[in-house]
Amino acid sequence: MANKKVHTSALLEKAGIPPPESISSSVVNEIQQFRKVQPTSKELVDGILNGNVTALSRAITLIESTNATHVEKANEVINACLPYANKSVRIGITGVPGVGKSTFIEAFGKYLTGLGKKVAVLAVDPSSTISHGSILGDKTRMEELVKDKNAYIRPSASGETLGGVARKTRETITLCEAAGFDTIIIETVGVGQSETAVHSMVDFFLLLKISGAGDELQGIKRGIMEMADAIVINKADGDNIKKANLAKTEFNRALHLFPAKKSGWIPTVSTCSAITKEGIEEVWKTILKFLEVTKENNYFFEKRKVQNLFWMMETINEQLKLNFYNDPEIQKLLDSTKKAVTTDEISPFAAAQLLLKKHFKK
Amino acid sequence: MANKKVHTSALLEKAGIPPPESISSSVVNEIQQFRKVQPTSKELVDGILNGNVTALSRAITLIESTNATHVEKANEVINACLPYANKSVRIGITGVPGVGKSTFIEAFGKYLTGLGKKVAVLAVDPSSTISHGSILGDKTRMEELVKDKNAYIRPSASGETLGGVARKTRETITLCEAAGFDTIIIETVGVGQSETAVHSMVDFFLLLKISGAGDELQGIKRGIMEMADAIVINKADGDNIKKANLAKTEFNRALHLFPAKKSGWIPTVSTCSAITKEGIEEVWKTILKFLEVTKENNYFFEKRKVQNLFWMMETINEQLKLNFYNDPEIQKLLDSTKKAVTTDEISPFAAAQLLLKKHFKK
Repeated sequence: MANKKVHTSALLEKAGIPPPESISSSVVNEIQQFRKVQPTSKELVDGILNGNVTALSRAITLIESTNATHVEKANEVINACLPYANKSVRIGITGVPGVGKSTFIEAFGKYLTGLGKKVAVLAVDPSSTISHGSILGDKTRMEELVKDKNAYIRPSASGETLGGVARKTRETITLCEAAGFDTIIIETVGVGQSETAVHSMVDFFLLLKISGAGDELQGIKRGIMEMADAIVINKADGDNIKKANLAKTEFNRALHLFPAKKSGWIPTVSTCSAITKEGIEEVWKTILKFLEVTKENNYFFEKRKVQNLFWMMETINEQLKLNFYNDPEIQKLLDSTKKAVTTDEISPFAAAQLLLKKHFKK
Repeated sequence: MANKKVHTSALLEKAGIPPPESISSSVVNEIQQFRKVQPTSKELVDGILNGNVTALSRAITLIESTNATHVEKANEVINACLPYANKSVRIGITGVPGVGKSTFIEAFGKYLTGLGKKVAVLAVDPSSTISHGSILGDKTRMEELVKDKNAYIRPSASGETLGGVARKTRETITLCEAAGFDTIIIETVGVGQSETAVHSMVDFFLLLKISGAGDELQGIKRGIMEMADAIVINKADGDNIKKANLAKTEFNRALHLFPAKKSGWIPTVSTCSAITKEGIEEVWKTILKFLEVTKENNYFFEKRKVQNLFWMMETINEQLKLNFYNDPEIQKLLDSTKKAVTTDEISPFAAAQLLLKKHFKK
């Protein structure tokens, strides 16, 4: 169909004026493009290594697919990109809704591209399955960064489990790094265990806070403060400056209650304003200092190894559980077994063994 | 052999004086006892429901066994005990070595038996596999409680994984409750994730601390403070009283940094001395108040249901992982795959898929 072939019906006695084409060439072209929509893995890898953002986006779409062929192809691409990855700093940023994560990331990202950095902004948001990408989904919240050719913004993958969403983001990091992004920012919200997942894929973990009336220090998810390498109190501008400084003192005191970190790093507390840009540079200097300390004592490299093993085990564990809970035998029994367990008709352990027997019998 | 049977050899023409028995009846008796060492599950259940501590201990030993027959029998016993369990308060106690957990539990336990309570003290100590029961192993540290007929002390089960150790302790709770123990104390140390495991099997979680010089507030494991329903500063006696009160103020301030608990309970901070017994009664009053609040708002009952489901899922997950990692195919490949993952030759996800394929191929 692609070639403008002359119609040679047996009914034509001799060559004459060919009849008009029944298909417009523009439609043909579109169909060709559609068929070409899946480039080979080599094409994708070449594109990524050349910093081609379209290739990067297409490869990420493969990662996010559940189609078995796509999964295989995604793995090929990731493995081919691996030798070119890892040369970045990975920064996790968390904070409850309202602390101004988007404005902070926009200001911070613009500051970094201003320094000549290439910045990728990703997200882990397990709730995005329902909200269709609540974090970063609305890219217009980062108006300037989204137009910056040295920045790449990708909304959260969606998926049924946090493990799945997080795994996809972790894989996306590798591709972004291979595409030349040297600063990876992973945003997450205080939902479920998403911070723990993000903490397991970044080098530096930043907790964004705001000062406010009375309950400004509330709303810290369990364990988050202890994960933080830095607490940054945002919106320290105008009338808020004094309150932000008070909050800074209070957090500093609180951090002393926690044990020393294995990294040898003492978490910092600072204030900043995404509007006046005050304190943004300080955040970056803190991160540079952190890299210096943890590369010097080797913690940085050891942590990345441990994180890699963690993700291998997590993926295995996730898949084992999926296999189990997707087993039709188990699906048939699960609800009634759960009910029996909550009403103390059967012990949780006997119930587990009962289900396991069913699963492994086959 | 047991019957004193007259020897009737064909060589004897007539009955005469029987030769002396070749086996002493006392040895026969011992052998019989040895063979009887495993009572039936019904005997065990009857014993437990009658508050027989020997039957209880034997059943717990079955729980701790890895022998398949024992596991099955243990499940029978647990299920039969279930309808009589759950009528207790389960208290988790944690604290770093040196805070005086044993002396506190002894003082607290004696106070409770003095009120007519029946107290079981268990432990979750995954390190006990190596140290052969470092917690509670040396029962002499609780000299008085161990002699108290209303107290039952059982050292930590051992096992290769925390999951296994914790599961066994959780099962032991059921048996202790069925045996009439109305107050279950679970001790743990700040090792690995053991607090999280204990937190998942108790109603009330108590963090024991001491005041001291400078670093007295250090050594809090990540996330522990946020799990605590009460922080008790021990060794508040003699010269320590002032320091303990200061620590109390500081912890109170720190607790305000954490979000409100789902239980509707506001964690308390108090001081106590296991030596002067000052503050011991207050701990119990706090627990009673906690029970009142959380039974009133139904949190107590809902939490137990959630905990049951948690243990069912945990047991399943643990077993799925054991099956996977004990697979000879996986054992052959695991080390080299891990190495490839840490040296970035293969992505953690591709490595996981490679291993999973091997495992499920069979």
